[in-house]
Amino acid sequence: MIGPVMNARVITLPQGMDWPTFEAGWVWLAGAGPGDPGLVTLHALSALQQAEVIVYDALVDERILGWARPDATVEYAGKRGGRPSPKQRDISLRLIDLAREGKRVLRLKGGDPFVFGRGGEEALSLVEAGIPFRIIPGITAGVGGLAYAGIPVTHRDVNQAVTFLTGHDQKGLTPSEINWSAIAQGSPVIVMYMAMKHLDQIAENLIAAGRDPAEPVAVVSNASLPTQQVLETTLSRAARDVAEAGFEPPALVCVGGVVPLRHALNWRENRGATPEILEALGRRTRETG
Amino acid sequence: MIGPVMNARVITLPQGMDWPTFEAGWVWLAGAGPGDPGLVTLHALSALQQAEVIVYDALVDERILGWARPDATVEYAGKRGGRPSPKQRDISLRLIDLAREGKRVLRLKGGDPFVFGRGGEEALSLVEAGIPFRIIPGITAGVGGLAYAGIPVTHRDVNQAVTFLTGHDQKGLTPSEINWSAIAQGSPVIVMYMAMKHLDQIAENLIAAGRDPAEPVAVVSNASLPTQQVLETTLSRAARDVAEAGFEPPALVCVGGVVPLRHALNWRENRGATPEILEALGRRTRETG
Repeated sequence: MIGPVMNARVITLPQGMDWPTFEAGWVWLAGAGPGDPGLVTLHALSALQQAEVIVYDALVDERILGWARPDATVEYAGKRGGRPSPKQRDISLRLIDLAREGKRVLRLKGGDPFVFGRGGEEALSLVEAGIPFRIIPGITAGVGGLAYAGIPVTHRDVNQAVTFLTGHDQKGLTPSEINWSAIAQGSPVIVMYMAMKHLDQIAENLIAAGRDPAEPVAVVSNASLPTQQVLETTLSRAARDVAEAGFEPPALVCVGGVVPLRHALNWRENRGATPEILEALGRRTRETG
Repeated sequence: MIGPVMNARVITLPQGMDWPTFEAGWVWLAGAGPGDPGLVTLHALSALQQAEVIVYDALVDERILGWARPDATVEYAGKRGGRPSPKQRDISLRLIDLAREGKRVLRLKGGDPFVFGRGGEEALSLVEAGIPFRIIPGITAGVGGLAYAGIPVTHRDVNQAVTFLTGHDQKGLTPSEINWSAIAQGSPVIVMYMAMKHLDQIAENLIAAGRDPAEPVAVVSNASLPTQQVLETTLSRAARDVAEAGFEPPALVCVGGVVPLRHALNWRENRGATPEILEALGRRTRETG
């Protein structure tokens, strides 16, 4: 199911590369990627191996935390989805306190800290407090997680633009400031984070703005992990199908003509594609091109 | 300029993790990230250390290629921007030929293979030819490169949606299928790849669709590399300022209210922020929130 056979091969890190030194009193704000530990970057690994305190999110895989120094303190700062988060300020204050104690503080988030990850807010708090920091980008689930479901977020002849949006606002409601009509018209492919709760309303908005109720939708939970699940549905059926399948957050929702490409590109199952599938995709490409 | 002091620290890769084995006759299609070798993923490094042939793009840093096996063959398959690319089919055929020879073939692209990287096309060609493959996502420049300029692509109170688009279509023209009016209305933040050539036309389209001519714009060339350059301008002045500054592709263009955050979050220069800057950003946050 994971494509190539896994074995106990150990890979070695390149010598001769100069890695940034994690100075005492600094905070490094890093993304851990969508889940698969192999999608962690070298900078993030370097950070894990130097940090004295790691403040991590719910979405960071335990295997990744296992790469911390044996003497590192690992603190959970879990937040979920778009629920009201009175704790955001507490997290920022905790980072500041730890840095002021002279610790090397790694703030480790799932995905990328700047893609609906509130990394900008935490970094602004650090700036206000005069704490030096570094940003380590991560692979965002909306790109890398969908790739593990065989879905390219852009594809020639399908889309020249892709929109990423959050399905939750700060109060846990459907985002009030999203212009659904404009998004529906401007973005052939829409990738939604934290959109499970309000999927019925979101799909209704998109259909009301002119999107085809039969448009393909993929819902991917636990993207890139061994527990990954993918549900293919349509805009009009998505909310019902998700409920029936019992899908739980975290999950990504992708709407648009790139979804059927997974019938050929689902490399994790690696079944190849029948001539019929290829023909269907070829026809689709020409139709939408 | 690169934030923390760099030294000769060598980081070690975690033991006990099972890495996928690169089987003979397979193609691994991987993203190398925006440029900084520290943004390469562990899977991509593992691929580099196993591949027998590496077919790489113009945008892959030489230091990264230096991590290949000493006996690996390294082939350049450079393409630039949105120029007509008669060679795309040749690249796909080359990958197929090499795989059929039983080689372990790494196709290494800058950024992420599925974000305007034509990875889907190459993967479809492999499927048609019956070649097994694996996808290794990378950090896309539109997220990670902008982070190195201190710009978060999303920020609370600024945007709940972000749109990525390509400024070139397949013929090297302004993308014909982009609904500029809808994008202008639906996407508070717009990140553009390969948009330098047609920046005047694109900015005009956005302004005609109602975007403020004074809206902040950042242009980032060589994002995440030591040669990175950042130009801050406005929508109405962007094309002229870029020409005057002599910026060359590859460059990213970011339009929207997240751009001024770099006055506080530009961690690479790490100058801190004056109270005036913070107040200006705070005011901005409240105004747009």
